[in-house]
Amino acid sequence: MFEYRILEESQSTDGRIGVLRTPHGDIETPCFMAVGTQGTVKALTTDMVKKAGSQIILGNTYHLYLRPGADIVKEAGGLHKFMNWDKPILTDSGGFQVFSLGDLRHITEEGVTFSSHLDGSKHMISPEKSMQIQQDLGSDIAMAFDVCSAADSDEKTIAEAMHMTHRWLERCKAYHTREDQALFGIVQGGMNAELRKESAQFVDSLDLPGNAIGGLSVGEPKPVMYDMLEKTVPYLSKNKPRYLMGVGTPDCLVEGVMRGVDMFDCVIQTRIARNGTAYTSQGKITVRNAEYKRDFTPLDPECDCEVCRNYTRAYIRHLINANEMLAATLLSFHNIYYTNHLMARIKTALREDTLQALRDEIDALYA
Amino acid sequence: MFEYRILEESQSTDGRIGVLRTPHGDIETPCFMAVGTQGTVKALTTDMVKKAGSQIILGNTYHLYLRPGADIVKEAGGLHKFMNWDKPILTDSGGFQVFSLGDLRHITEEGVTFSSHLDGSKHMISPEKSMQIQQDLGSDIAMAFDVCSAADSDEKTIAEAMHMTHRWLERCKAYHTREDQALFGIVQGGMNAELRKESAQFVDSLDLPGNAIGGLSVGEPKPVMYDMLEKTVPYLSKNKPRYLMGVGTPDCLVEGVMRGVDMFDCVIQTRIARNGTAYTSQGKITVRNAEYKRDFTPLDPECDCEVCRNYTRAYIRHLINANEMLAATLLSFHNIYYTNHLMARIKTALREDTLQALRDEIDALYA
Repeated sequence: MFEYRILEESQSTDGRIGVLRTPHGDIETPCFMAVGTQGTVKALTTDMVKKAGSQIILGNTYHLYLRPGADIVKEAGGLHKFMNWDKPILTDSGGFQVFSLGDLRHITEEGVTFSSHLDGSKHMISPEKSMQIQQDLGSDIAMAFDVCSAADSDEKTIAEAMHMTHRWLERCKAYHTREDQALFGIVQGGMNAELRKESAQFVDSLDLPGNAIGGLSVGEPKPVMYDMLEKTVPYLSKNKPRYLMGVGTPDCLVEGVMRGVDMFDCVIQTRIARNGTAYTSQGKITVRNAEYKRDFTPLDPECDCEVCRNYTRAYIRHLINANEMLAATLLSFHNIYYTNHLMARIKTALREDTLQALRDEIDALYA
Repeated sequence: MFEYRILEESQSTDGRIGVLRTPHGDIETPCFMAVGTQGTVKALTTDMVKKAGSQIILGNTYHLYLRPGADIVKEAGGLHKFMNWDKPILTDSGGFQVFSLGDLRHITEEGVTFSSHLDGSKHMISPEKSMQIQQDLGSDIAMAFDVCSAADSDEKTIAEAMHMTHRWLERCKAYHTREDQALFGIVQGGMNAELRKESAQFVDSLDLPGNAIGGLSVGEPKPVMYDMLEKTVPYLSKNKPRYLMGVGTPDCLVEGVMRGVDMFDCVIQTRIARNGTAYTSQGKITVRNAEYKRDFTPLDPECDCEVCRNYTRAYIRHLINANEMLAATLLSFHNIYYTNHLMARIKTALREDTLQALRDEIDALYA
């Protein structure tokens, strides 16, 4: 059900083009997943998310578990039906979200107890519970419940978190039964090449339909992240999709693909949109700035998205200034379109073996 | 250029069906105009506004004059181009808006001086200035700059405001030159039948392309408003469109049409949407309420709009609860669709002479 086929391989990099089959349709990789934390890609209808070129979106288990509750989503017929999205969905496991709660959570071998950021109520998520929630949500791809470690952790802490992640992965695999849902394991190991290798080998050995790389883009310099990718990817089966979690700025997407990553997700596209910023062929522009007051050109003159075809910088700046919600809608649409379009350009470059030139172009704008 | 043709007349009421030609297309009347105060119908793209069935929208001169400024809208090529709306636009004159500033404004024969609600800066809008701004905005229909009076004003105050409105209307007409823009006069006269008659006769005598009724729905009981309509409409030329400003709830729309009104505008559809309320065939429902937590039916089971075909009450309630902007988008779309659909039902009822039955149905739900 989750067959992954590699269609083409880059000659001079580790990049490849593939297709992942899921119950809600095929995903062409490399691909970017927009994030729909609370059952909606913020400020966009699902129709717009499709028009922006998205093939798959991400849902957050932690948020949906707390609100509206996995029981309600299940009763609605699953997350696809609940939120009116008939294409593939990947759900994270809640691991990173509860880790991010800091003092509000406590990790034991059994799982993580934590206080809700909404109302302080106490909860426990274990590997089994995360599987159950994700099975209730009914995503196409479920993620293993993992243990993160802070970017500045010592080796012992990182190793302990990694080994616990491995034990939890076995529990996730043992508990997970839903056949129309793929379970992906997650590699941890901090910024330690040896641990990354050990983790990748262990995760890969469980022979799941896909493998993810977690614990990167947590504050380390980009070259360190790229180095860790190079120390991890070689130990992940070539014939399985590789998903780099929580990454996506334009430069990281190109650099990730070059290192053999197939799937990405990131909130930055919609977050900077709500803050008045657009990705463009000229780099990031902060449309809220006064310089765009009388700029009657599109957000990106080289973009052919609906927003760029119909609205100007001056208009969108006015909307931001006037606190009109439409600003977030138009900018979110554009930024997701831009990113999906970049993935399409990456594929073309991969086919034509010009990925390094594209990397140089995007790095000059974004790195 | 602004020909108005009456296509059908109701047999048992004063209602009629007509078509008003404008430079941006024909408007079938009776019609409802959604309000785009700051150059956007809040939370909706113009594409959605069209899909919700809107033929014409309203823009606010006061708001657009202050932000982004009429000069910027003019430079953008006019309000249609600025906001990406190629159908007709009506702009109000700013008269009601500055009146509503209360202590922040001062009315003299020349015009109104006021302090901006945004930054306290001082401004003056006169009849001529209002015309100039509206000509710069380039709406299809401009409204005369009028003087309102409070709902509880004494007869002398109402009469003075009305007479000043008449003098200002002559100044508006004398100043207004844009041939691709119609100027509508506004009847005032408070809740006084004699003054309403005098005002209607005066405004009608100027032979403008359309006549509006202002100063209603300002806090008076609905029967008083209906009575005032009956005292006003007979003195407005039958062959010109009649616009009842700032009205409509569903019941007032039907009651207005029965009394010979052709055009309406109201912010309530989008305002209650942002507050979590939907118009439905069962009356108003407050979707944010807990009772809809597990209600997997559409907002309105009898509605065939995109929102009702694709989203449930439980989902929309979740969005409201989670402070997701999409809630306002979905509810605004539905409420405007509902209202435009009601106007279509009114037309059918008018043709079939069943308007009174429709009134009874809508009154039972909304009055």
